[in-house]
Amino acid sequence: MFKRLTIIGVGLIGGSLARAVRQVEGCQEIVGCGRDERHLQQAVDLGVIDRYETGIGAAVQGADMVVVAVPLGAMASVFQAMTASLDADAVITDVGSAKASVVEAARKYLGRHFDRFIPGHPIAGTEQSGVAASFAGLFEDRIVILTPHDTTAADALAQVRRLWDCCGAQLMTMTEAEHDSILAATSHLPHLLAYTLVDTLCGLDAETDGGRNIFRYAAGGFRDFSRIASSDPVMWRDICLANGPAIISALDRFGKGIAQLRQAIEQGDGEQMLAIFERAKAVRDSQVIEGSS
Amino acid sequence: MFKRLTIIGVGLIGGSLARAVRQVEGCQEIVGCGRDERHLQQAVDLGVIDRYETGIGAAVQGADMVVVAVPLGAMASVFQAMTASLDADAVITDVGSAKASVVEAARKYLGRHFDRFIPGHPIAGTEQSGVAASFAGLFEDRIVILTPHDTTAADALAQVRRLWDCCGAQLMTMTEAEHDSILAATSHLPHLLAYTLVDTLCGLDAETDGGRNIFRYAAGGFRDFSRIASSDPVMWRDICLANGPAIISALDRFGKGIAQLRQAIEQGDGEQMLAIFERAKAVRDSQVIEGSS
Repeated sequence: MFKRLTIIGVGLIGGSLARAVRQVEGCQEIVGCGRDERHLQQAVDLGVIDRYETGIGAAVQGADMVVVAVPLGAMASVFQAMTASLDADAVITDVGSAKASVVEAARKYLGRHFDRFIPGHPIAGTEQSGVAASFAGLFEDRIVILTPHDTTAADALAQVRRLWDCCGAQLMTMTEAEHDSILAATSHLPHLLAYTLVDTLCGLDAETDGGRNIFRYAAGGFRDFSRIASSDPVMWRDICLANGPAIISALDRFGKGIAQLRQAIEQGDGEQMLAIFERAKAVRDSQVIEGSS
Repeated sequence: MFKRLTIIGVGLIGGSLARAVRQVEGCQEIVGCGRDERHLQQAVDLGVIDRYETGIGAAVQGADMVVVAVPLGAMASVFQAMTASLDADAVITDVGSAKASVVEAARKYLGRHFDRFIPGHPIAGTEQSGVAASFAGLFEDRIVILTPHDTTAADALAQVRRLWDCCGAQLMTMTEAEHDSILAATSHLPHLLAYTLVDTLCGLDAETDGGRNIFRYAAGGFRDFSRIASSDPVMWRDICLANGPAIISALDRFGKGIAQLRQAIEQGDGEQMLAIFERAKAVRDSQVIEGSS
């Protein structure tokens, strides 16, 4: 059980983590921290946190577990602001969608606390954001990836495992490079395709005679596909900035697949098309467990 | 009210149309036709059709309305097989996802019946197929696009309108070129992106150390996105063969969008990324009506 859990960034992820830990009575006190006092007060009113601090130093004082749940672009400055006030045995973790850039910032700013920092990423979320959308069950049966490093303190890793166990999550460990490459393909790439698809249709629509709204003709497939284009643009900008090389590699790999399909269409090569579609359908049908999201 | 409605191809679309027309008592008799007698018998057992014929000539004899609901690749041979047996005042329509290629086949094979052929496309469907998945409400409030031509008989067009009115569909008319271009962007492109995404991940997975199943790390966005990669590969091959030029144009337009985003990522241009994501999110949130699929 934790004595004091400090959550920096009490949004969908930070708020849901607080709710989950509280639900199993996993800590004595939860302190929230963030830039917007109204949001923090809302989190108190909703019973998500016990109290809040607006200063990062004050928020982490006396905490045995600190969770950094801010956008990727704010990680470095948060680490920098907390390091002088951290207890010597405090454990620090984060929930960022890219890991190499976060580890780099942590290495730079956390100093002697770096070995007690466990990079983490819960693969969970919705298109919603903010503490009002948070709920205790968000991480249940969801995968949480931890990317401990060579010098990681074993007891700190155990504490972070315990934190996610409270939430009912499935824990996996891998290197940060592996994480960033896999997530670039399975998460970042689909989001960029969805954004680009909607933007492409938008451009086509503007050129269509008489301002015909071509989105009217989009069927269910398009809607499912494009749902993720409703995600937070700032968060996705930060992810692209933080995980650029892995994302470019995923885009290029995807581009090769598109080029192959384009060639098959241009040449009227039905066999080649069928091979691609059947392979994808077989994999999709066998791999994806419906119902979990 | 129709006297005899003949449906060639009693699958999800043909079966749902039959159910909808029957539900409002829109015709006296529904005759089904197809290649697989077991499926036709199943359609009779389910009460979807009254009887069936396995020969196309016999099936269309005495019909005042003939609906061709076969895959795009089979359209030409079906038109060819029916033309000698059609009543002089029979109305013919289809439900193909691409229109120019169907019109070309109809012009070639329907002869004097061509002016009573109304090309149609209901924008409805699920990843399911087959008559067992059919239901009367499939077309309710869904858009059905008709692409009548210069010499189309006005009374034939009115009959096809009446047919879809029975189903509760919203009717739109446009040229076949406009249909093919719009659907290439709003439907065909997303399906090809989904197939290619799954295939790309599949290739990456095969290269990953220790056969780690990267699909495990795919979150909700990927699952929604890739659902349409479960669609029928043969149907999508036929669509690519039938609507090649419009699809290639949509792919190239999409490719330009991806190239723009790739450049922004490579240059770390956060402003450009944000502009694309915000534009897409705004359009997606305003245009797409959730709940309809």
